[in-house]
Amino acid sequence: MAAKASLHLKASPHSISKLPKPYSPAAASAVALPIRRLRGATLSATRISASLIDPDGGRLVELFVPESEKGSKLKAANELPRIKLTGIDLQWVHVLSEGWASPLKGFMREAEFLQTLHFNAIRLENGSVVNMSVPIVLAIDDAEKSRVGSSASVALVDERDDVVAVLSNIEIYKHNKEERIARTWGTTAPGLPYVDETITHAGNWLVGGDLEVINPVKYEDGLDRFRLSPAELRDEFERRNADAVFAFQLRNPVHNGHALLMTDTRRRLLEMGYKNPVLLLHPLGGYTKADDVPLSWRMKQHEKVLEDGVLDPETTVVSIFPSPMHYAGPTEVQWHAKARINAGANFYIVGRDPAGMGHPLEKRDLYDADHGKKVLSMAPGLERLNILPFKVAAYDKTQNKMAFFDPTRAQDFVFISGTKMRTLAKNKESPPDGFMCPGGWKVLVDYYDSLSLSDNGRVPEPIPA
Amino acid sequence: MAAKASLHLKASPHSISKLPKPYSPAAASAVALPIRRLRGATLSATRISASLIDPDGGRLVELFVPESEKGSKLKAANELPRIKLTGIDLQWVHVLSEGWASPLKGFMREAEFLQTLHFNAIRLENGSVVNMSVPIVLAIDDAEKSRVGSSASVALVDERDDVVAVLSNIEIYKHNKEERIARTWGTTAPGLPYVDETITHAGNWLVGGDLEVINPVKYEDGLDRFRLSPAELRDEFERRNADAVFAFQLRNPVHNGHALLMTDTRRRLLEMGYKNPVLLLHPLGGYTKADDVPLSWRMKQHEKVLEDGVLDPETTVVSIFPSPMHYAGPTEVQWHAKARINAGANFYIVGRDPAGMGHPLEKRDLYDADHGKKVLSMAPGLERLNILPFKVAAYDKTQNKMAFFDPTRAQDFVFISGTKMRTLAKNKESPPDGFMCPGGWKVLVDYYDSLSLSDNGRVPEPIPA
Repeated sequence: MAAKASLHLKASPHSISKLPKPYSPAAASAVALPIRRLRGATLSATRISASLIDPDGGRLVELFVPESEKGSKLKAANELPRIKLTGIDLQWVHVLSEGWASPLKGFMREAEFLQTLHFNAIRLENGSVVNMSVPIVLAIDDAEKSRVGSSASVALVDERDDVVAVLSNIEIYKHNKEERIARTWGTTAPGLPYVDETITHAGNWLVGGDLEVINPVKYEDGLDRFRLSPAELRDEFERRNADAVFAFQLRNPVHNGHALLMTDTRRRLLEMGYKNPVLLLHPLGGYTKADDVPLSWRMKQHEKVLEDGVLDPETTVVSIFPSPMHYAGPTEVQWHAKARINAGANFYIVGRDPAGMGHPLEKRDLYDADHGKKVLSMAPGLERLNILPFKVAAYDKTQNKMAFFDPTRAQDFVFISGTKMRTLAKNKESPPDGFMCPGGWKVLVDYYDSLSLSDNGRVPEPIPA
Repeated sequence: MAAKASLHLKASPHSISKLPKPYSPAAASAVALPIRRLRGATLSATRISASLIDPDGGRLVELFVPESEKGSKLKAANELPRIKLTGIDLQWVHVLSEGWASPLKGFMREAEFLQTLHFNAIRLENGSVVNMSVPIVLAIDDAEKSRVGSSASVALVDERDDVVAVLSNIEIYKHNKEERIARTWGTTAPGLPYVDETITHAGNWLVGGDLEVINPVKYEDGLDRFRLSPAELRDEFERRNADAVFAFQLRNPVHNGHALLMTDTRRRLLEMGYKNPVLLLHPLGGYTKADDVPLSWRMKQHEKVLEDGVLDPETTVVSIFPSPMHYAGPTEVQWHAKARINAGANFYIVGRDPAGMGHPLEKRDLYDADHGKKVLSMAPGLERLNILPFKVAAYDKTQNKMAFFDPTRAQDFVFISGTKMRTLAKNKESPPDGFMCPGGWKVLVDYYDSLSLSDNGRVPEPIPA
């Protein structure tokens, strides 16, 4: 970008405001081009590739104010009522501004909100339907609503009161939190991380409207170069002459089972006749719950895995998906898939219990492990996307490596759950040879080591090496 | 029907097992033909009218075993594992068997259940989408599941252990009650009537499959003649040469505000160019909560209103909609509308807060009063249906009658809420002249009178006059 933006997500548990040195993995240049194009001169540039899947609604929505208009827009914004954004609100501004939620043009108005809650899809004016399963909404409280009064526009400001964006033609409507939670998560049990973080203490009103972003959201954590927008990813896929793009969403360290799956997927796509399938390895970079491994450590771990040569840099693009995490299982996996269509992916790998977690109160998983892929395969607006169910990989004791589980010789396999992996890393024990490359494993051990040094197990300031 | 069926809903709070005399309103023959056709010889007869709106999925599904096959089917059924139906399960068998839920062919399998919960709609094999917003499912407990074992079919039996139907090609899947409740009602607060009645104590499994009904569900309450199936209603509309059918769902006594609305709707349809719009006045006849006026009393009240000439019998068909009530607001109103498409209605009148109720725990309505009509107007699969928002009627003191509310002279109007109406009737007070015809009002007073005579306010055996 021409102007260096300076937004920080101070409210985020994973904000990284001080970095000892820029994070620059050796493999980065081969893996993902960190060169960000200058934004186009129009607010909503049309970007349709001849080869890549069309964005939802036919064109990729970008909501940036053109450089030439920034001055006047900012001046006008300074006269408007102000709404202060939380760190997670800013992540949604980021998501909306780059078109991950195309064709959404801003925070949802009530008609979009209701369709999302009831149908997980929005009908466009031309009658076509796009998927939209999680509400992207901005909550305000009574005092803010009162300050907005009858103004048709508001300025959205960050924690330092700097104007980030303008929301126009606004509509203010009731924030029925209970109904939103019940319909999004399928439970209202206390203890849902995103609910605790963003809804419980939020205001009783939602404000929707058309978003125009003056200062693109930056995190200044050394990782911004990995935050490629859908338009940038599309350019990258075209530069590589990809004729298929398969996306792998993750928010956990990569082990060799994942690598096997990704490599195998490429093989299957080649068998299907594609000439150059490219993998979008797409770790989620927004809000995650406290016991997930923070983004900076995950990126470091991914770097080691890539250095190790487990994945081919020529056919892999590593980038950060800026969305916050809902942990809303079958509802959220649709969002994860839909956003990747907008980034050019026409294949999506879905695992067991995607975006799932344990029930906050009961000793069981919140969602049926198979519902995610079932719901995804039937979801309105995702008919164009090819769903690739995750094959189950486990540690094969006869080969000393991760392999696809073969039920005819079940006794040869060991399943290493996320819990077991974390326990091993916490105890500085090693996993079986071939489970994860040693460099990647060391990152995990270092992360848990840093945790045990901190008081009462809270997540400390991440320290990228 | 050729054979007199003998099912009773003994478990229903509104079951009517003893009737002093058949209920035969004087106006009935003019209002709705109580002659039930003999069912067709095929299980799923194709019924497409040239003039009426097509049923969902293109044809009306009927799930009755042909007369000639009843013997063999019953014999085979007697060898199958048995599942005992509750009174409300039987109401759903009734609903499914007549095609109100077309194109559903039986209790939902998991794919249909998940689509209903997440999308309020089901995609058919040809890619088209039909609305389906409430789960129509059959719960079984562990013992029943164990008894079913690996059988591909089960016999569904009533409380007297008589076989009602067979469910074939069954699929048994988990009944996640919390998720079902949260996604259907948008709350999990204890005290939702349908939940308390049918879900809380139900089994932890659901069984879906293809339904074949051997003995059509009858209630023997003197009202079966008003329970016209979608096919019978379509025949009736055709017999009357209706070129538009507008449906009015209700579960309350009819007052002159309702009558005004229905008359006005016909006038508007005539103005739109229709030659013969016919009203389907369609009281809900299945399960309702304890403080609703029971069906038998409502039908008696409707009869008096019709006798009074408030509605024109020539252009009105009164029939009973056999569905149980969910009280699930915006989710349920879609079901109410969709079922009426299957009965031939192409216009649907939607009121304020349809299928709504008070929040079970909080002092507020469970749903936003406007969400019902908003959600209905955007619902997938209902694009063909014309939604007619309810105009607000109130008592006009200057005219001494119910009239459409005119906000420019708000002071002239009195709103008589359902609560106020019930309070007046309970106290044997009269409403203002012109609110309801005297005969209809007397039925209400008599009903509450019968309640106060019974012990502790419980709903007594209804006594049709």
